[in-house]
Amino acid sequence: MEKEKTTIVLFSGDLDKAIAAFIIANGAAAYDHDVTIFFTFWGLNTLRKDEHVDVKKGWLEKAFGWMMPRGAKKLGLSKLNMLGIGPPMIKHVMKKHNALSLPQLIELAREQGVKLVACTMTMDLLGLKEDELVDGLTYAGVSAYLGDATDAKVNLFI
Amino acid sequence: MEKEKTTIVLFSGDLDKAIAAFIIANGAAAYDHDVTIFFTFWGLNTLRKDEHVDVKKGWLEKAFGWMMPRGAKKLGLSKLNMLGIGPPMIKHVMKKHNALSLPQLIELAREQGVKLVACTMTMDLLGLKEDELVDGLTYAGVSAYLGDATDAKVNLFI
Amino acid sequence: MEKEKTTIVLFSGDLDKAIAAFIIANGAAAYDHDVTIFFTFWGLNTLRKDEHVDVKKGWLEKAFGWMMPRGAKKLGLSKLNMLGIGPPMIKHVMKKHNALSLPQLIELAREQGVKLVACTMTMDLLGLKEDELVDGLTYAGVSAYLGDATDAKVNLFI
Repeated sequence: MEKEKTTIVLFSGDLDKAIAAFIIANGAAAYDHDVTIFFTFWGLNTLRKDEHVDVKKGWLEKAFGWMMPRGAKKLGLSKLNMLGIGPPMIKHVMKKHNALSLPQLIELAREQGVKLVACTMTMDLLGLKEDELVDGLTYAGVSAYLGDATDAKVNLFI
Repeated sequence: MEKEKTTIVLFSGDLDKAIAAFIIANGAAAYDHDVTIFFTFWGLNTLRKDEHVDVKKGWLEKAFGWMMPRGAKKLGLSKLNMLGIGPPMIKHVMKKHNALSLPQLIELAREQGVKLVACTMTMDLLGLKEDELVDGLTYAGVSAYLGDATDAKVNLFI
Repeated sequence: MEKEKTTIVLFSGDLDKAIAAFIIANGAAAYDHDVTIFFTFWGLNTLRKDEHVDVKKGWLEKAFGWMMPRGAKKLGLSKLNMLGIGPPMIKHVMKKHNALSLPQLIELAREQGVKLVACTMTMDLLGLKEDELVDGLTYAGVSAYLGDATDAKVNLFI
């Protein structure tokens, strides 16, 4: 029997929404779905490496790179961000309740075979290079996403 | 013939998004769908009781409880909130046009048999207890949501 | 063989989310899906005409009309809006990379036969008249949306 499919577009660059996306993705993978997360616009920041990577780019692309959070550990909250006090509060309660952190959720998703797709159009626009993103990603555009979504039962935009 | 199914994840704690979620949910129920709303993260605030409920919790959980809106009447807007002027403006025009208020939309959803599910993981994290939430909820986690969503035609994340 | 269907609820009035919605809609139309975008709440601002249209309305409706962005060229960003510096930056990089602007994406959607539906309930609430919106729209409510969504494989709320 063919596997059920789930796709998530992660558009948002908020910590709380990224956590929600990965909890649903990991749940669906545990449920034996084929799962794809398509990272586009600000969502792509979830996949940036922590450290600065030296790549050649224009000043505007540099500005975007400097203004946007560098990876899963640096994301803010969509609510109660409170100039940066909110994220450590949330991380603290998650740790206290033995909930997986976002980096751990991403790691689990990889282990479960969740397909992580970086939107190449966004990379072009914001000037993000493959070297600046974590390893093991698929690079594709909206038509690849639609190919997956058309076969999927659960499609979410987060 | 089996009923069509619709599921909505209500992640947002904004008044306007909660109204949209309940309008779609009530519409789908009127369309004879089995409808589930899964309240997670800030969306759970929609289901808080108006009044303070005396439950034992840690200082961080108390802080979250204090910072987050207490129930459907206290939610802000995602746009034009304007330090609190926006919500009464929206409520005023809704009343003027005989549109149902959010508390009325919630009541209608209950009457139509919409399943309201409180995300137990979020309750743990934010320190919300069953006594602090309105009556008649189902308590479940992401796997229950995915069970419903996999059978549903319409799945939305709001 | 019947065509696949895709529906998008565009609730948000943010430029970046509207662009994402139209890129997905145009991709799905190119994929030969029947595509519907249902514009509700702030999303309806995407469809406003640029210029002021003289229609009779109450002071509250006038206030909403004045506070909300007038059309696709005036929308702000959900992130990095930076008091209005963000949108021209994004528009600049989109132009530089030969990406279609939002007005061009809307035009392409029309050419591809994407059905653009204005939510009549929102129009009532915010006091928007047909004359204030661009031409060629369908006017309908949530039940029409649900009719489309129930037949669709891909349903997104943006």
